[in-house]
Amino acid sequence: MKILLTNDDGIYADGLCALYNALAGEHEVYIVAPEAEKSAVGHAITIHYPLRVREIRRGKFFWGYAVSGTPADCVKLALYELIGPVDLVISGINRGANVGINVLYSGTVSAATEAKILGYPGLAISIDAYENVDFCFAGYFVYSFIKNYGDFILRNVLCLNINIPHLNPHLIKGIKIVRQSTAKLKEFFEKRLDLHGKVYYWQGAEEHTETMEDTDVIALKNGYITITPIQFDLSSYRELDLLKKERIFENFSL
Amino acid sequence: MKILLTNDDGIYADGLCALYNALAGEHEVYIVAPEAEKSAVGHAITIHYPLRVREIRRGKFFWGYAVSGTPADCVKLALYELIGPVDLVISGINRGANVGINVLYSGTVSAATEAKILGYPGLAISIDAYENVDFCFAGYFVYSFIKNYGDFILRNVLCLNINIPHLNPHLIKGIKIVRQSTAKLKEFFEKRLDLHGKVYYWQGAEEHTETMEDTDVIALKNGYITITPIQFDLSSYRELDLLKKERIFENFSL
Repeated sequence: MKILLTNDDGIYADGLCALYNALAGEHEVYIVAPEAEKSAVGHAITIHYPLRVREIRRGKFFWGYAVSGTPADCVKLALYELIGPVDLVISGINRGANVGINVLYSGTVSAATEAKILGYPGLAISIDAYENVDFCFAGYFVYSFIKNYGDFILRNVLCLNINIPHLNPHLIKGIKIVRQSTAKLKEFFEKRLDLHGKVYYWQGAEEHTETMEDTDVIALKNGYITITPIQFDLSSYRELDLLKKERIFENFSL
Repeated sequence: MKILLTNDDGIYADGLCALYNALAGEHEVYIVAPEAEKSAVGHAITIHYPLRVREIRRGKFFWGYAVSGTPADCVKLALYELIGPVDLVISGINRGANVGINVLYSGTVSAATEAKILGYPGLAISIDAYENVDFCFAGYFVYSFIKNYGDFILRNVLCLNINIPHLNPHLIKGIKIVRQSTAKLKEFFEKRLDLHGKVYYWQGAEEHTETMEDTDVIALKNGYITITPIQFDLSSYRELDLLKKERIFENFSL
């Protein structure tokens, strides 16, 4: 397979390297990734500044293209200009889970979504840990997952958001196909003073408030690899029906 | 009503001023907006840098808070810290339509979506023009729309993406409740050389390829004010059913 790799932790991130090592033996693998960390950028694209591209080497070998933009920029630029069509786009392996509301803020997921928008299958891979992350099993999982289901994913042009628990492989309970949790995050702002006595704020989130078993948040917490198929239509069809049924805006005049 | 205004064109944008002027006579209006233009940032949030807040005056009067972040940051910071709970969040009036795939990239829409995530109703207002934009009618439309349907919107905690054609009001054909188009954009990258002979790329999009009448893209083009209720669950339920029915990942072992 011809595979494009990207991420939001930047081209030098360990998780990207783990993906590359797991896949390069069997597949034709290309890397186009942000030159610096771009997490929490959501589905941002760069239209008011030009994009720069640098060729990155590791030792003697060409490693990939570093782009001065977001993950979604990388996917567009790769597929339109730098690489051309591929069979599959994989984004990750992200340091930290991308489940629940965080999917909206995630650069990792947005890269896979962008692939789907452009008509290509995409996988977003994240691991549920921030410190001392072991990407070894996750890399092997992706390799094996593609070997088993690559044809199915390509045929159905699926975009899958995959989260992997940071557990010893024998403690992982299996795979669960689950919806994205929409439960609120516990968020807060911490107000601090700088060295000149001026106020600034740090934005933080503690945890999800989700309790439903059929969601990515809870399945991941319970030790499952979670898989959520992703789409990019933000229309609320339930509310579309409500508005049409109530004929609410129909006779509006100014 | 207690209303929070924000946008992605920045706190000094004409569209925000038009909203303020249209609403401040009848409502308690607060402004928390990015200090600089933040369009195409999608649902980005700022977690790796602190946020700064400046109080902005217009003449002798306090105008609002300028935040060193994205539209989604502004909504969070306003509701959690600077203002507290409000009845309604309105984002805009954006210079340029936010329909179809562009909804994913839109900072304007993401601010209204963020309101909904936090449990508040939100409106994203955009006008379909970039040059010599007349915000006068759009401002009056928002005022009148809230007067007529404010209660309904609050009761149902709706998040509505509203696009207004840039036409003489008597040429506007009415309101259409429509879904977000998911048709591809015609996109391109333009490769140029800088003054040192180095390559850079501009990212551009020409137009939508949509043809379906029941979409925001076509209804707006046909002279209607479009209203699309927005949700923030990216799960593809059609594909969830497919994966569950085919039991495709069930017997996966590494």
